[in-house]
Amino acid sequence: MLIKNSDRIVFAGDSVTDAGRAYPLGEGGDGLGRSYVHIVDNLLAAFYPELRIRVTNAGISGNTSRDLLARFDKDVIALKPDIVSICIGINDVWRQFDSPTIPDHQVMPDEYEKNVAAMLEKLQSGPRDVFLMTPYYMEPNTSDAMRARMDEYGAACRRLSDVYGCHFINLQAMFDRYFTFRHSCSIAWDRVHPNQIGATLIAREFLSACAFDFLHISNP
Amino acid sequence: MLIKNSDRIVFAGDSVTDAGRAYPLGEGGDGLGRSYVHIVDNLLAAFYPELRIRVTNAGISGNTSRDLLARFDKDVIALKPDIVSICIGINDVWRQFDSPTIPDHQVMPDEYEKNVAAMLEKLQSGPRDVFLMTPYYMEPNTSDAMRARMDEYGAACRRLSDVYGCHFINLQAMFDRYFTFRHSCSIAWDRVHPNQIGATLIAREFLSACAFDFLHISNP
Amino acid sequence: MLIKNSDRIVFAGDSVTDAGRAYPLGEGGDGLGRSYVHIVDNLLAAFYPELRIRVTNAGISGNTSRDLLARFDKDVIALKPDIVSICIGINDVWRQFDSPTIPDHQVMPDEYEKNVAAMLEKLQSGPRDVFLMTPYYMEPNTSDAMRARMDEYGAACRRLSDVYGCHFINLQAMFDRYFTFRHSCSIAWDRVHPNQIGATLIAREFLSACAFDFLHISNP
Amino acid sequence: MLIKNSDRIVFAGDSVTDAGRAYPLGEGGDGLGRSYVHIVDNLLAAFYPELRIRVTNAGISGNTSRDLLARFDKDVIALKPDIVSICIGINDVWRQFDSPTIPDHQVMPDEYEKNVAAMLEKLQSGPRDVFLMTPYYMEPNTSDAMRARMDEYGAACRRLSDVYGCHFINLQAMFDRYFTFRHSCSIAWDRVHPNQIGATLIAREFLSACAFDFLHISNP
Amino acid sequence: MLIKNSDRIVFAGDSVTDAGRAYPLGEGGDGLGRSYVHIVDNLLAAFYPELRIRVTNAGISGNTSRDLLARFDKDVIALKPDIVSICIGINDVWRQFDSPTIPDHQVMPDEYEKNVAAMLEKLQSGPRDVFLMTPYYMEPNTSDAMRARMDEYGAACRRLSDVYGCHFINLQAMFDRYFTFRHSCSIAWDRVHPNQIGATLIAREFLSACAFDFLHISNP
Amino acid sequence: MLIKNSDRIVFAGDSVTDAGRAYPLGEGGDGLGRSYVHIVDNLLAAFYPELRIRVTNAGISGNTSRDLLARFDKDVIALKPDIVSICIGINDVWRQFDSPTIPDHQVMPDEYEKNVAAMLEKLQSGPRDVFLMTPYYMEPNTSDAMRARMDEYGAACRRLSDVYGCHFINLQAMFDRYFTFRHSCSIAWDRVHPNQIGATLIAREFLSACAFDFLHISNP
Amino acid sequence: MLIKNSDRIVFAGDSVTDAGRAYPLGEGGDGLGRSYVHIVDNLLAAFYPELRIRVTNAGISGNTSRDLLARFDKDVIALKPDIVSICIGINDVWRQFDSPTIPDHQVMPDEYEKNVAAMLEKLQSGPRDVFLMTPYYMEPNTSDAMRARMDEYGAACRRLSDVYGCHFINLQAMFDRYFTFRHSCSIAWDRVHPNQIGATLIAREFLSACAFDFLHISNP
Amino acid sequence: MLIKNSDRIVFAGDSVTDAGRAYPLGEGGDGLGRSYVHIVDNLLAAFYPELRIRVTNAGISGNTSRDLLARFDKDVIALKPDIVSICIGINDVWRQFDSPTIPDHQVMPDEYEKNVAAMLEKLQSGPRDVFLMTPYYMEPNTSDAMRARMDEYGAACRRLSDVYGCHFINLQAMFDRYFTFRHSCSIAWDRVHPNQIGATLIAREFLSACAFDFLHISNP
Repeated sequence: MLIKNSDRIVFAGDSVTDAGRAYPLGEGGDGLGRSYVHIVDNLLAAFYPELRIRVTNAGISGNTSRDLLARFDKDVIALKPDIVSICIGINDVWRQFDSPTIPDHQVMPDEYEKNVAAMLEKLQSGPRDVFLMTPYYMEPNTSDAMRARMDEYGAACRRLSDVYGCHFINLQAMFDRYFTFRHSCSIAWDRVHPNQIGATLIAREFLSACAFDFLHISNP
Repeated sequence: MLIKNSDRIVFAGDSVTDAGRAYPLGEGGDGLGRSYVHIVDNLLAAFYPELRIRVTNAGISGNTSRDLLARFDKDVIALKPDIVSICIGINDVWRQFDSPTIPDHQVMPDEYEKNVAAMLEKLQSGPRDVFLMTPYYMEPNTSDAMRARMDEYGAACRRLSDVYGCHFINLQAMFDRYFTFRHSCSIAWDRVHPNQIGATLIAREFLSACAFDFLHISNP
Repeated sequence: MLIKNSDRIVFAGDSVTDAGRAYPLGEGGDGLGRSYVHIVDNLLAAFYPELRIRVTNAGISGNTSRDLLARFDKDVIALKPDIVSICIGINDVWRQFDSPTIPDHQVMPDEYEKNVAAMLEKLQSGPRDVFLMTPYYMEPNTSDAMRARMDEYGAACRRLSDVYGCHFINLQAMFDRYFTFRHSCSIAWDRVHPNQIGATLIAREFLSACAFDFLHISNP
Repeated sequence: MLIKNSDRIVFAGDSVTDAGRAYPLGEGGDGLGRSYVHIVDNLLAAFYPELRIRVTNAGISGNTSRDLLARFDKDVIALKPDIVSICIGINDVWRQFDSPTIPDHQVMPDEYEKNVAAMLEKLQSGPRDVFLMTPYYMEPNTSDAMRARMDEYGAACRRLSDVYGCHFINLQAMFDRYFTFRHSCSIAWDRVHPNQIGATLIAREFLSACAFDFLHISNP
Repeated sequence: MLIKNSDRIVFAGDSVTDAGRAYPLGEGGDGLGRSYVHIVDNLLAAFYPELRIRVTNAGISGNTSRDLLARFDKDVIALKPDIVSICIGINDVWRQFDSPTIPDHQVMPDEYEKNVAAMLEKLQSGPRDVFLMTPYYMEPNTSDAMRARMDEYGAACRRLSDVYGCHFINLQAMFDRYFTFRHSCSIAWDRVHPNQIGATLIAREFLSACAFDFLHISNP
Repeated sequence: MLIKNSDRIVFAGDSVTDAGRAYPLGEGGDGLGRSYVHIVDNLLAAFYPELRIRVTNAGISGNTSRDLLARFDKDVIALKPDIVSICIGINDVWRQFDSPTIPDHQVMPDEYEKNVAAMLEKLQSGPRDVFLMTPYYMEPNTSDAMRARMDEYGAACRRLSDVYGCHFINLQAMFDRYFTFRHSCSIAWDRVHPNQIGATLIAREFLSACAFDFLHISNP
Repeated sequence: MLIKNSDRIVFAGDSVTDAGRAYPLGEGGDGLGRSYVHIVDNLLAAFYPELRIRVTNAGISGNTSRDLLARFDKDVIALKPDIVSICIGINDVWRQFDSPTIPDHQVMPDEYEKNVAAMLEKLQSGPRDVFLMTPYYMEPNTSDAMRARMDEYGAACRRLSDVYGCHFINLQAMFDRYFTFRHSCSIAWDRVHPNQIGATLIAREFLSACAFDFLHISNP
Repeated sequence: MLIKNSDRIVFAGDSVTDAGRAYPLGEGGDGLGRSYVHIVDNLLAAFYPELRIRVTNAGISGNTSRDLLARFDKDVIALKPDIVSICIGINDVWRQFDSPTIPDHQVMPDEYEKNVAAMLEKLQSGPRDVFLMTPYYMEPNTSDAMRARMDEYGAACRRLSDVYGCHFINLQAMFDRYFTFRHSCSIAWDRVHPNQIGATLIAREFLSACAFDFLHISNP
């Protein structure tokens, strides 16, 4: 498994990550909120009790990439993490469609790619592993305007992962596969905020990328 | 205009109609809730102050056609309305997709058509005008599984309107046109519960079917 | 229609405008509050979906013209609006009658006219269109002391509209016409704060002054 | 003074009387609510400490004369009062103007007069003194439609007081005199529910009718 | 009457005066709180509608004379009152008996007399009339330790009134007379905070000292 | 000690006993409320851990002896207690002084003595020990009217204890002694409801009557 | 895997199962509560989207085996489950130690075994699979009195599983192994109610007993 | 008794001491919170009414020795106490076991001993008596990892008490004795926060160390 004893993992993002975490620091049981972050923590603690892994939720609801970049030094770099995972961009796109009359709230593709690049630049020297999750829209129809726009942001993530040597996690593709079995409304009413099943799906995707072993059982 | 002085209009339906109305009787200002019903009432009172029209909201959140039929005598017929408008069926379909493991909450197309037919049968002798609004799903992609299923229920409404001589209001078609301009997430996060813009759109559709005159200004 | 694509409209005023808007910025769905402002927004979005018009509610409950002038640069000018609408003065008058012993809360006619003139002066160079709504008292009896005093403030608005070339909106006259059909208590218990019917009446008056077309239906 | 030691006084009415009294019995300090009833009680206790007078508030918010008649045996007669004061009718009229489309909530003049007569009939044998207060509308303009209608109900009270030998208290006339000095909005925002100044005015009117002596000071 | 048109009256004190008043300024209807201050205001407005008298509640719950002196410039002098009434000292004494182990909360007789003298000194040049009310304890037994101590503070008030030419209001004596008729627990459970009957008694005492005329009825 | 292993003790009374206990059964930690009952329980558990003693709080706030008698079979006898302690009568007296105008709420001495006698009669065959606590008024001045009246009820308790062979607990005398050291307002603001110091005093009095040994320390 | 498409699984138990589930039926997303039941549901839905499995939480906080037996027909049998899992007994034991003085709340070992046997008897004909989880106490020290007592109840579960052919799940043994790595206070502050890590551990234990495959990934 | 008239006692600690005390100063009735501190105060006031002893609760929930040291000058020394009692260290240890992944929240034995030594150093010159209570864990099994660790902190307290001449109070030993009679869950669900019985046990231990006399009864 990529995650080692004594590692500190910081998850940065928006409401998909935040989900009611404690402030100022999202740590410790309920302090982790109810997103995929607490499920990652639960599974690590349940399957690998012999390891001490510190998990921190650094998501803030409503953040765009612009907001996250502005607080990245304070909320991520300053924690000296061993592993960082970023999931940002949904609000950059969403505001273009649910608030079409308010341009200040929107972040266009060019700026998005620059913002995320600036974060990855800051992570070059510190952590051992960096994960970049695509933003997603739980809309299987790729010709939907918002989905099509979201795919541009996902493509930027893939390009940036290649450039900066991050682990690339394609949440959009994972949800697309899932929706061949069940309708997206069984995971999220608004096609963005996953329920606990959806959070479990994201957590599994992250842990798979870490080569987590679900058959691992420690023996005293 | 189809609506006459002293008419009583009863709107039956689910949460799209209910939207926080008063119980047991949804009447009188805030008692009308925040759905299209209060917008219909506001526009009637603002543009036709010379008429006295009683508007009653008889929607109940979460209702399927099965639930509405069970209370139809008490909540609609007993009020002796001059005009009745029905908008039901969204929950019949939704539960098939967001709760796929709980069949008791789902109402299949055959039962739906029988339920609505039973309501229209009860309305044959009393009210002067009956309106039947299609259930809808704010998903423009007609090959989406839930949308495709919703269209079956809409088609049933069209058939029933022909058989029983109702005014047919195609909310699905109206929203489809609107989404050629704006994305559905600007009207509803969950593609079902409209915000006040969406409620205004439904109210306009109903009033158009009533031949409401937006240029009407009474002169003392 | 006077309102163009990409316009930003700012509504300044008191509780008649505010009505529960979001702070610090009254924008975006429920953030617009429940006054005529959200009805203007709903009707624009419903009838003109092809336009992107940004609507901002800058009312603050309890404001007199003195209070509004003090915050006018920050809350109105700084937003660089294309269109501004002002409705102020009710509290200037009301405090003279409901708090006769507390002179600091009252604004007399001379100061009122100077305050509003100062606002209009600030608007000379920026926005394309400025609307000035009269304050009103929903009391049809023009010899009522408070109504008579309110009419002085309305007359000031008419004079100022002429001097500064504003669109003049006579809400008092509009309500007077309405009350030939229905009693004022059907619109407001306190003859000041309109319910949703009254808010619809004000919105219609504003939109009429903008040459809004209720028959406008965009065709894709 | 008409009120004697050991008397029980029951005040029957609507929200003007109720004003937050305790249920089921409006007695004892805060249990008396915040209407004129508690001011009557305070003044009796402060100026006549040597007397033991039991004051009961039997008002219920929203009551029309129809509602009060239906509960009159249980809430008034059963208490075996020595003195009864009735103030009813405002809602009978108000609903005609603020809810013009809902006729069930309105009580017309004929029914009103019959309802109050039926109450007075029940009081013929029990109490020593009966007071009938007119309903009122704090609108000095007697040509206002609601005021004019209210005056019909006040006139009925005068007729009934003559027939049944009640003490007649003309609250409408009292308020009319007061409004020659101050505007009605200094007493009530909705022209119906008096603030504590207005409650003091009603209490003084009742006590004057009882020949209460404000100069009375007991000497031990 | 000592009180003239356009007068501003400021009442300074502790919780007996405060009683839930608005902050920072205790004015205007419910803003006056529920102590004797609002009853003074109600009676002035009800009996003398032709006068405009501004009443301000400047009591703060829990204040001792030390606390009041510290805020006297800001809360009393700065308001430029025409009439000032002070009722302070109860907490100075009470803390000696309910918190015997916490000396910092107690104010001894010498300090009390100096504190009140300092306030009266500040009032020498400004207001036309100054009233000094004794602190009191609703305990008729003058040999009770706390009552005996309170009487020392009342005696100081009498001395100071003589020295500074204030109107002296002996609330303790007034309550003593009242308790020859009724037990103190009918006015206050804790023998300090009066209910509305007790507040009426204090208000009457103040108004009597002002030569208020309860028979005064203005004629338009 | 009179209390034995496995005993069930039931405390019956009014708000002095109740003090926020759980309903319907006042047992188990916070369920015992905050009166002397929980202090008795705490001290028994702390000093005698080797015993299992079940303590039940059966007080109900506001009860008079009339109320307690009416529920005595259900709330006391049916629990088959080994020990019963009764403290009742304060409200019987208090209502005569704080609500002098409402005779139904008052219980006079004759009825009181009959009510308590009827309770003691019911206890003749069941419990091993019965304690009767005097009602009290924390007023050291025995010529105070309410105190003098309370002493009549206390004398009745003494007579009844003799007749029925109860343990007599003179709370009034205990408080009288205490108030030679501290003022009653350090124990209760209203001279009735004790704070935790006062509750400790009552608990000590009860435990002394039970021959509780404060020096008892169990040795394993 | 033992669980098949279209199965209904009902989990019966106490607060460890309940954990905030919906009433009357614990189903559907948040309706499942926050115990191991929702984690079972999340993992089934995430890893086996091709199956439709209905999960019902029938736990009620505070239940002993006596309480569960009394409602077993209504809450379990009537749902016609395919799979039933029972986890009961913790409160049977706990009340013996935290409420030693209240015997009615305790269930002794003999009664416990009879109660669970009666439940298993009822399940003989209906469901395909029955799971019996041991009650547990997160106390690794087997000589602790409460742990030792709990082990008697766990032993009864093992005997009953043999007799009735249930799947036996030894939660106590699972937690014992876990606490060789981490202290019990990292899972539960009170050694009974697990946090989300502990709930994940129980869910894994149940799913292992069902031969759930964590490597299962459906391919469309 | 070690405690003298006019003494001020300050109790410093964590949530075991705090327990809902008032801020900024934990004094005066409910201001003392619900821990052993208010029981000490109640017993002193009940048994020694002739003494005036000021008791201050300076505990803050969640504090470790590091936190307490940081505020010791302000919260303890500045109050110039005659007697100081410290109970700290539980959180130092607890965080090592319930938050094993978050080292910043933990205080290791060496630092603990230095922190407490620094506090005792500050107390060398001021107070007459200093008490040092051991931290404790209500776990009788001394081989439990957290208990074993806690015993190291308790041993440090013993060493420091010898060095600095403090009164040493062994709470751990006291609870150990108690749990030979009753299970720890009857005192605290989490083995740390005592209920009122446990608070009584701590209070008794403190008072015994002060040579408090439970047989002391003052005679006037």
